[in-house]
Amino acid sequence: MTSGPRLGGVFAPVITPFLPDYAPDAPRLIRHCRWLLAHGCDGLAPFGTTSEANSLATAERRSLLDSLVRAGVPPASLMPGTGCCSLTESVELTAHAVGHGCAGVLALPPFYYKGVPDEGLYRHFSEVIQRVGDARLRLYLYHIPPVAQVPISRGVIERLLARYPGTVAGLKDSSGDWAHTLGLIEAFGPDGFDVFAGSEVFLLRTLVAGGAGCITAGANLNPHGIAAVYRAWREGREAEPAQEAADRVRRALQSAPGIIPAIKAVVAHWSGDPVWRTVRPPLVKIPAAEVERIRAALAAAGLLGSAASALRAA
Amino acid sequence: MTSGPRLGGVFAPVITPFLPDYAPDAPRLIRHCRWLLAHGCDGLAPFGTTSEANSLATAERRSLLDSLVRAGVPPASLMPGTGCCSLTESVELTAHAVGHGCAGVLALPPFYYKGVPDEGLYRHFSEVIQRVGDARLRLYLYHIPPVAQVPISRGVIERLLARYPGTVAGLKDSSGDWAHTLGLIEAFGPDGFDVFAGSEVFLLRTLVAGGAGCITAGANLNPHGIAAVYRAWREGREAEPAQEAADRVRRALQSAPGIIPAIKAVVAHWSGDPVWRTVRPPLVKIPAAEVERIRAALAAAGLLGSAASALRAA
Repeated sequence: MTSGPRLGGVFAPVITPFLPDYAPDAPRLIRHCRWLLAHGCDGLAPFGTTSEANSLATAERRSLLDSLVRAGVPPASLMPGTGCCSLTESVELTAHAVGHGCAGVLALPPFYYKGVPDEGLYRHFSEVIQRVGDARLRLYLYHIPPVAQVPISRGVIERLLARYPGTVAGLKDSSGDWAHTLGLIEAFGPDGFDVFAGSEVFLLRTLVAGGAGCITAGANLNPHGIAAVYRAWREGREAEPAQEAADRVRRALQSAPGIIPAIKAVVAHWSGDPVWRTVRPPLVKIPAAEVERIRAALAAAGLLGSAASALRAA
Repeated sequence: MTSGPRLGGVFAPVITPFLPDYAPDAPRLIRHCRWLLAHGCDGLAPFGTTSEANSLATAERRSLLDSLVRAGVPPASLMPGTGCCSLTESVELTAHAVGHGCAGVLALPPFYYKGVPDEGLYRHFSEVIQRVGDARLRLYLYHIPPVAQVPISRGVIERLLARYPGTVAGLKDSSGDWAHTLGLIEAFGPDGFDVFAGSEVFLLRTLVAGGAGCITAGANLNPHGIAAVYRAWREGREAEPAQEAADRVRRALQSAPGIIPAIKAVVAHWSGDPVWRTVRPPLVKIPAAEVERIRAALAAAGLLGSAASALRAA
């Protein structure tokens, strides 16, 4: 059982803006964070996969988080990604986030070595928790085997929960496997372990099963549409129509060759600010013709108008 | 065609010693490097996969390299690993190594995102080379798909070689696929591109085909045995017996559940210094009984005596 306030709802793994020379740009990041919070997001998970966090240096991640907090983005709404391949840097970033009063951190497993034993993953997370040594820490495990290629097994979760019940607060499941998400909610939900789905397509099912919400790339473009699912469910209204609408938008987005460059290209178009198109290597921009196709697909799925004008005005 | 002296022979991806609190230990690292150079290694590739480099922070890697150079380990023998997921840190570590006069650097591709386009990998390496902007840079690509899960394709090599012919100096092939290694030697060797095999089992075949040598975990334990293959070949003597002897040792080592903890455990035993057993999470030590089994297997393969006593005396 965690002792702090529990997080839930719709979180955006915020895209990171880069200037043409690939330097991260704090002012644009701050603007996008404010827009997300103003348009339906319950919280923000900067420095996730969608944020190209692993394409950033540790120092760049610290500096961007400093900028967000300094600009008044509420730490109580923040769950920054702080998991690195190295124990040392994971501890550094986690302590930094807790020092800023962030509501939680999202912790990737160390992802260079593959096929590592559960014991090694357990020790990694255990060391991070012990070295940060701060009762305010709320750690959410980040299970994303399609990218990290290092899953976080039930055995690891069980041991961490048993040892650090007030600190190990939940998990983001980006396995894309609903049966897996459901299994985690059923197994660990009763202990106060909050499971977030890694995509909005699982949001309503997650909530109905007792999960906490979703942390999803799609929230960068469609925060209000995804939030509508959460609001309807929380208020006891019929949520299926909102879920279906959110699914249509997600399918349109998913048709892109790469979801991160696609999201950035759409934000660039909506905001009239081409700087947003830049991704850091090894990702690459998507071609202009492809951007046009995705925009048309999103429009056909109903995503235009209010979102576009609101972002432009931000 | 690279303009600097070309590297070749047997390189060790040096294991990194950790104190019981997981802090890296420079004095032991320096001792082991000296032992490796005194016992047959032509060069050292610290901060590779075997070195648990990605379990180290950027600052720790810089500090250890500073210590090695300060201790008199010749930079002309060094090819440190400098490839990170982030462009920024890859540039920082590469510039740092070049600043120390290291003979080369071994560059992993950014390895978080999977299935990235060739264009993105090309841009990453191209940016690193341009930002370091130092004619002394000799960059060796590090192809290790079983671990990084991000291969470096022929197309990427071709483009980099065409654009940076004096800088892109070669590649370490840890694919474990001899046909792949041979293909690279045949395709790019004539351009002065030096291919190192990622295991000693391919050493003689690599040399005969026109490759440069090997960079292999096994050299941490068996530098003289592997160097014997290289010496025999270079001096025009029959090299097959030395290769067969090296293969027997490698097979014994390979029987361990994890080669990195196994190497460290054997070094701990040989040196009488249990500190060497420590690995950073997510790796874990191998059980004592297993260590005994591997030592016996190595002894049966002929690895004992001179190597053991030499390391103990170091």
